[in-house]
Amino acid sequence: MQEKQLHSGGKILFFNKDYISEFVYGGIDGAITTFAVVAGAEGASLGISVVIILGLANLIADGFSMSVGNFFSTKAERDAYERHRQVEYWEVENLREKEVQEIREIYAAKGFQGELLEQVVGVITADKDVWVDTMMKEELEMVKSDKTPYKTAGMTFISFLIVGAVPLLSYVFVGSGPAIQKDLFLYSCILTAVALAIVGSFKSFVTEKNIFVGIFETLFLGGIAATLAYFVGDVLEKLFL
Amino acid sequence: MQEKQLHSGGKILFFNKDYISEFVYGGIDGAITTFAVVAGAEGASLGISVVIILGLANLIADGFSMSVGNFFSTKAERDAYERHRQVEYWEVENLREKEVQEIREIYAAKGFQGELLEQVVGVITADKDVWVDTMMKEELEMVKSDKTPYKTAGMTFISFLIVGAVPLLSYVFVGSGPAIQKDLFLYSCILTAVALAIVGSFKSFVTEKNIFVGIFETLFLGGIAATLAYFVGDVLEKLFL
Repeated sequence: MQEKQLHSGGKILFFNKDYISEFVYGGIDGAITTFAVVAGAEGASLGISVVIILGLANLIADGFSMSVGNFFSTKAERDAYERHRQVEYWEVENLREKEVQEIREIYAAKGFQGELLEQVVGVITADKDVWVDTMMKEELEMVKSDKTPYKTAGMTFISFLIVGAVPLLSYVFVGSGPAIQKDLFLYSCILTAVALAIVGSFKSFVTEKNIFVGIFETLFLGGIAATLAYFVGDVLEKLFL
Repeated sequence: MQEKQLHSGGKILFFNKDYISEFVYGGIDGAITTFAVVAGAEGASLGISVVIILGLANLIADGFSMSVGNFFSTKAERDAYERHRQVEYWEVENLREKEVQEIREIYAAKGFQGELLEQVVGVITADKDVWVDTMMKEELEMVKSDKTPYKTAGMTFISFLIVGAVPLLSYVFVGSGPAIQKDLFLYSCILTAVALAIVGSFKSFVTEKNIFVGIFETLFLGGIAATLAYFVGDVLEKLFL
């Protein structure tokens, strides 16, 4: 969905939220995915080095995969728009009668009739750009995205890596040894919760909802995912180790 | 971006691709994420049980997290559309002159002028639904999404779990013991490549591109992500284990 201008009451705010949204969803996904690996490894009572190795491997591989996936899907969306627009230009050139009739039907549905309808059809079809633009919005219900694939993918990658690294910080920087591993996990829980709360507050900015709803939703999601990972790790440890 | 009808040359195909797209992106993400855990663990020479435990923990936690994230973002998109529509209805009621002037500017930009422009403005503003619909498409460039959050999230979850389970199949079902672990990894590579190729061919269906482009892009992405994870695991094993 595209939003060139955002409304707030009667005011129009000129503000492009597109890349904040990539930052938010990339960051949430990074933190939750990495924390799931940490929680799963803790549930299975695996060592600190396993947590760090698999956490980092997952962070880099998943961050890469998510960003490239994002690149392809943003590009696919733009390409689809462009391709359909080319088809419409072709149709306007080669299937003129049919396309004139479609404009007539679109404006008849808006309440135009008789001589006025024909005049409107005349003006719209007098300019090929206006004609095609009308077909895109009214017939296909497609709007052009302002997002460029490199920027959406780049923002996703940076956010995924930075926020996604948080659950691993305590393991990497605070000492080692099995004696303090439960402490490290506790620190990781706290730091991850803080990171998710911060990103969650940005999320409420994107969704234009109450800031506490954004924070709560994000923490809740992260909490459930980590709990699932922890207990899967715990149950499987008893089965396999 | 919304596509109610898809063009192919002059033909219009009535076909809703929305949920195929969720299947494709959920499946690719599931397979690549899980395979990254497998490859990272192999790179670090961790045991079969660790691969299974962390692979399954990550599969369930990440599949859950991705689906719920998808639920919130689809819902946020629909809510944003609905909220802006309500604002437009409010403005049409309470800031009538300003909104009439906006319609006048929108149609002037299309090439209408003089008496005809005033008649067009008269017809558009005679029906509040048509009026608001025009403001949504022309001023805000927003179109309504057909996707329901439950369906997009459900399809993402199912696809993530099914396709994402593929990299683990050989570890779960083909015996155990360190002697055959390299074989298990090889089977996992092959099965994952087949799964990614199948989902990649569906992807070309969504992006309307050549099927081999879809397969190649998906395999390439999965291959790079797994290679990254493998070498991160390998390097960190030498540092930590």
